[in-house]
Amino acid sequence: MVARSLLITGSNRGLGLEMVRQLVLAPRTGNPKPEVLIATCRSPHQAQELCEVADNNKNVHVMQLDVTDESSYGSFVSRVGELVGPQGLNLLVNNAGVAPKSTRINMVRWQQVTDTLTVNTVAPIMLTKALLPHLKTAANQVEGDSLAVKRAAVINISSVLGSIARNEQGGLYPYRASKAALNAITKSMSVDLRGNNILVASLHPGWVQTDMGGKNADLTPTDSISQILNLLRQMTDHHHGQFYQYDGEQVPW
Amino acid sequence: MVARSLLITGSNRGLGLEMVRQLVLAPRTGNPKPEVLIATCRSPHQAQELCEVADNNKNVHVMQLDVTDESSYGSFVSRVGELVGPQGLNLLVNNAGVAPKSTRINMVRWQQVTDTLTVNTVAPIMLTKALLPHLKTAANQVEGDSLAVKRAAVINISSVLGSIARNEQGGLYPYRASKAALNAITKSMSVDLRGNNILVASLHPGWVQTDMGGKNADLTPTDSISQILNLLRQMTDHHHGQFYQYDGEQVPW
Repeated sequence: MVARSLLITGSNRGLGLEMVRQLVLAPRTGNPKPEVLIATCRSPHQAQELCEVADNNKNVHVMQLDVTDESSYGSFVSRVGELVGPQGLNLLVNNAGVAPKSTRINMVRWQQVTDTLTVNTVAPIMLTKALLPHLKTAANQVEGDSLAVKRAAVINISSVLGSIARNEQGGLYPYRASKAALNAITKSMSVDLRGNNILVASLHPGWVQTDMGGKNADLTPTDSISQILNLLRQMTDHHHGQFYQYDGEQVPW
Repeated sequence: MVARSLLITGSNRGLGLEMVRQLVLAPRTGNPKPEVLIATCRSPHQAQELCEVADNNKNVHVMQLDVTDESSYGSFVSRVGELVGPQGLNLLVNNAGVAPKSTRINMVRWQQVTDTLTVNTVAPIMLTKALLPHLKTAANQVEGDSLAVKRAAVINISSVLGSIARNEQGGLYPYRASKAALNAITKSMSVDLRGNNILVASLHPGWVQTDMGGKNADLTPTDSISQILNLLRQMTDHHHGQFYQYDGEQVPW
């Protein structure tokens, strides 16, 4: 089991949608499915595939959330509390993100940088802060101080493009800056939340055939997510505050 | 000599002001002083100490610049071109920055994160883009492809607090995220500008006794800046795209 209850942002397509699908299919692979799977997206009425999954699976709850609209967090967090109940929220996956196409310094625009930082960096900090009470409740259901995703965890979907050490191609200022900043946040959260027994890690999902990754990417969404779910099941204290790719290999900052 | 012409943002106090002072004093230490030293700040009429230095040194030019006001960049860049002349701008020091005090995830506020990212991350990208024509002009004054600050360079004033590997204290989300993102930008710029023979590096000035660093800091501004100027004089291709502290020791990402 990955976790009893999960919340995944940006679930209408790409990796978010695939994660929901595989979690629903979990029983076929011998893993129990989550009791509460909250899948958020900006426009549920346009998220046909996600809504079909939810129509066929009572444990899947599609919730409207624009991660950049902090004014909506209060009622959103209350509703999450009703869904997860007194056992709290085990896993928050900060997956919603944007990736502007332009590259090289002569192409970069102010608004593009600020918009990318808002979605990919600011929102994961603030949404995690808002959902912390439910994550702490889940962590408190277990004795001792060992970490596990099925206990309580924040997984930030980062990218190898945010690895400064691995940047040999340059360009991509908004995206690279936003993901390096997200990795910095993962590290700070790992320190701040260790005492609450909440595991925190950054994940690079690989270069995947999604709208964001394009058709020439290395991996299918199925391959990427099946390996990520396998990794999440195995994560322990050892992984806390670190950066891993889908197959469990550590990525340098 | 550090460089014939330099531009330092945020020069009204702290490390920026100290850098201007030591560059003006350079002849006393056996180093020629710069021909054109452009010191920017948001409010020159409130920058009494900086204006006194400029009053006594014809090579120092105080210019008004709010780095977050992109609409002012056009006329600013034109005026910089008039001051540096056909030899171009040798060195841009992206020094202006903010450091909000609050720490720990339960204290972080949305506006605080976005404001810090705007000053510390977005502005250095966009100001560097705007000043690139003058930096390229300077780089083109020299034959060959070797790098040196006195030829052409962008130095981003970062912080060890932006080092993800060195983060053992957690918290400080806005500042840490903004400086990790700035380091990511340094690396991308180093790739993009290598062909233009412009050196790019991130610098950690140490923990310095300034308004930002506080009275208990390790270093005086005098010590930090004298070592930084020494490092800048010695920088070569070897330093390109890397992160150093004031004394020349490399800092991990």
